[in-house]
This record gives sequence, structure tokens and C-alpha cells, in this order.
Amino acid sequence: DLGAGKAKAKMCAACHGIDGLSKVADAPNLAGNGELYLARQLKAFRSGERKHPQMSVIAAGLNDDDIAVVTAWYSAIKVSVELPQ
Amino acid sequence: DLGAGKAKAKMCAACHGIDGLSKVADAPNLAGNGELYLARQLKAFRSGERKHPQMSVIAAGLNDDDIAVVTAWYSAIKVSVELPQ
Repeated sequence: DLGAGKAKAKMCAACHGIDGLSKVADAPNLAGNGELYLARQLKAFRSGERKHPQMSVIAAGLNDDDIAVVTAWYSAIKVSVELPQ
Repeated sequence: DLGAGKAKAKMCAACHGIDGLSKVADAPNLAGNGELYLARQLKAFRSGERKHPQMSVIAAGLNDDDIAVVTAWYSAIKVSVELPQ
């Protein structure tokens, strides 16, 4: 359900963008990353295995369903790249 | 020096691509991420603050100059996105 994921992603957007492109220097792009990778990171922040001032707090408030829908949203964004010449 | 960064990035390419797009489920895209973010992650893997079976080993072999050139390469890749309808 990408609609639910997009709605949930509003809480991520200030730093990661609703488009999954980082808006701040210390946040990564999320767009087009695999659901497995993204879910592992959110669960690592939630468990305390990975730490970050904002993400540790945010992830603590997410249940597994929240993680599933928000990772589905960011994973569904198609990414294309242009390499430096 | 993007040439040095691109050369160094060959050691990242099996999982992250020379183009910074992930080739395996448990690796993130690196393309277009900020140098600050990327360098922090490599230094966190190197110090043990962040852990991953492959990255903890790989980062242990990088000095600060290696980190600077490889993050400059991945950061210089331009990313564009297409959102799901």
C-alpha cells in the first residue's frame, strides 16, 4: 500500500524528502534503496544497535507495520544516475 | 580528485556499484549522498560504532584520505528520481 507509505513518510520528509533525496547534510538518500536494507536500519535504530540523535528517537516510535509501509514507499521510487565525466 | 575516488571505489563496486546503485539486498545506494554522511558512516564502521559483517572489515583498512576520495566520487554522482503514481 504505497499510499499508506507515502503518508507515513511525511514524518521522514524534513530530512530525507518525500522523494527520498536528502535535504540535510547528515541524512542519506532513501530513494530506491531495498526494503530489506531500509527495514534493517530502522530496526537497528529502534533496538539501539545503530545510533543517531534523531533516528534513534524516531525509530523508537515505529512498529513493524509502520516500517513495512514506509520502506515500501521509499523502495518504490525509481532512481537514475549520471556519472561525473 | 574524482579519478582517485573512482579507482578506490572499485573495492566498493561489487555491492554498491561503481555507479553507487546497490547490487545486493543488504547494501544501500551510495550515489549522490553527501560527503559528510558517507564519511561519517565509514568512520563509524572503522571505529566499531556501526557494525556490518562486510563493512566493518573493509572500513578497518581505510585511512582518512581513502575515505575522502571515495566519498567524493560517490557524492559527485547526480541522482534523479521518479515517484510512483
